[in-house]
Amino acid sequence: MTADVRVIDWLPDGGVRLLDQTRLPAEEVYVDVRTVEEMAEAIQQLKVRGAPLIGIAAAMGLAAAAAREAERGSLTREWVEIAASRLAAERPTAVNLRWAVERVRVRAAAHFERAGAAAGLVAALTEEAQRIWDEDVAMCRAIGEAGAALIPPGSTVLTHCNAGMLATGGLGTALAAVYVAHRQGKDVQVVSCETRPLRQGARLTTWELARNGVPVRTVVDGAAAALMAQGAIDLVVTGADRIAANGDVANKIGTYGLAVLAEAHGIPFYVAAPRSTFDAELASGDLIPIEQRPASEMEVAAGAEVVNPAFDVTPAELINGIITDRGVLAPPYGEPIRELLGR
Amino acid sequence: MTADVRVIDWLPDGGVRLLDQTRLPAEEVYVDVRTVEEMAEAIQQLKVRGAPLIGIAAAMGLAAAAAREAERGSLTREWVEIAASRLAAERPTAVNLRWAVERVRVRAAAHFERAGAAAGLVAALTEEAQRIWDEDVAMCRAIGEAGAALIPPGSTVLTHCNAGMLATGGLGTALAAVYVAHRQGKDVQVVSCETRPLRQGARLTTWELARNGVPVRTVVDGAAAALMAQGAIDLVVTGADRIAANGDVANKIGTYGLAVLAEAHGIPFYVAAPRSTFDAELASGDLIPIEQRPASEMEVAAGAEVVNPAFDVTPAELINGIITDRGVLAPPYGEPIRELLGR
Repeated sequence: MTADVRVIDWLPDGGVRLLDQTRLPAEEVYVDVRTVEEMAEAIQQLKVRGAPLIGIAAAMGLAAAAAREAERGSLTREWVEIAASRLAAERPTAVNLRWAVERVRVRAAAHFERAGAAAGLVAALTEEAQRIWDEDVAMCRAIGEAGAALIPPGSTVLTHCNAGMLATGGLGTALAAVYVAHRQGKDVQVVSCETRPLRQGARLTTWELARNGVPVRTVVDGAAAALMAQGAIDLVVTGADRIAANGDVANKIGTYGLAVLAEAHGIPFYVAAPRSTFDAELASGDLIPIEQRPASEMEVAAGAEVVNPAFDVTPAELINGIITDRGVLAPPYGEPIRELLGR
Repeated sequence: MTADVRVIDWLPDGGVRLLDQTRLPAEEVYVDVRTVEEMAEAIQQLKVRGAPLIGIAAAMGLAAAAAREAERGSLTREWVEIAASRLAAERPTAVNLRWAVERVRVRAAAHFERAGAAAGLVAALTEEAQRIWDEDVAMCRAIGEAGAALIPPGSTVLTHCNAGMLATGGLGTALAAVYVAHRQGKDVQVVSCETRPLRQGARLTTWELARNGVPVRTVVDGAAAALMAQGAIDLVVTGADRIAANGDVANKIGTYGLAVLAEAHGIPFYVAAPRSTFDAELASGDLIPIEQRPASEMEVAAGAEVVNPAFDVTPAELINGIITDRGVLAPPYGEPIRELLGR
């Protein structure tokens, strides 16, 4: 983020400070988290959001809560298992959360195997969480470099939701490509889809791009097709919440429609994500669980019925390339994804 | 509308009472209009909206304002011309407004030609406005009958914006087909796209369908594609703000995207509109002026740039049929539209 804003950070006492993303862009308010319940709530209420960032936040939150347990003398292997399960249960679609929590859990298990006690565990978990964060920063940078190469000078990039500095520990995923292209002097501009119901595009993407000097215009989600028909969009780049072994991508509701529209207009459609977003366990996107969010998000009259899925699945066939920290994967994605994950 | 709600009506003193649609569904508030400026403002602020209804409202408003001028002894042919131009200048995309205002203007011109004075003009204009309304009621009913035949029993109809009782003087256009199918016991249900930025789908379509006992669920605009992919949508029916001579349709922003998505999923896409929505003067949709609305509608941070077109154009090739008060037109639309308009 810019120098004066920290999306996530450690507190001096080992707690975690989060920029409350539900309050943006009106207010820059921080929320301090020191327990598993507080972190679970921050994740559920989307105070912290973005697939890579919730992974980092959950890992840091586990370390912070473990420190509190250690002070009380109640940090046990069982506590770590329960706390990890509790956090992993939030936000079922994004796989980064489970991936990061699992890393912390495995680290704790290894510690108990070796040391036989909790002494030194907090330092180990804090180190693991910091490592997850540091790796994400590096992956964002690598994604940015790889993605920028796909952005011709003078391009207008359409994006959906927020896959930027507010969604990761670093530069972002989709927006990392934009930031790097911008720094390369490529005269790139962004069309940010509002992204109903929670307006992450209008609130967050617009805010962080403007703050970083990248020209950005917001449109309602329904206007993307008309802009494509007018030739006003050169490429589409989005983030991802989970990528199946065949390259099918779960991402914010509306992404699939944009992919269909991009294909119909001959516009390249790319997805950007770090390795932590891939889920080799799932053969295809129809196996990805889709989180249903409460009707209250949609601001309808009391009693009105809604369907409010947080995500949709874009089939691999509609994706022209998956921008990763190890370069751009080209379809068909099965083999390159296996290589990426070292399987 | 249901017995207790009148979308538009005459006041005892010759003024016009409008249901303020900006306040729905929270409040049923009426606004009384007696001058051209008041009606122009109500139209501009979308207190009254829907292509057919703004035509009716403008005609009634002209008659109401003419009555006031007549009381003052200042009702002249020039006044009618200026007042008609003033009203016709609001909302450039919907052609019904200009069509209705022109009918009133021509009626006034004929009166002055014949009578040479304003005496009796108010009655003539009131009669003309009432006739426009009555014809719309009849056209809505005919559209409903024709459209219902396209809705198989047990269907889920996806619609966008509001093309119902709140958009016309009668049953609606797209929703007329739903209402008639519902009354025929066809077990029809509706998915209502929210329709950002002003949420006419979530606020108005949902409200009137629920009030009339038709099952309806609201989705964000970005969720339509996922529902189509799941096989949850059987057909799409929308209204229209202007239809060019070749069958290209201007309608609420987002309609074009839905048409592309419907085609990609093999789902029939229909447009419903009365004759007053056709504009034989325009050869194709690219000639239809598209109204740009203020950034304030999009609720972005101060200074944020937006693109906020109120409408988009769906090319005739994507439309499986145009439901009119004289039956369903089949593509190619050039000849059937010429026949419909008696040219």
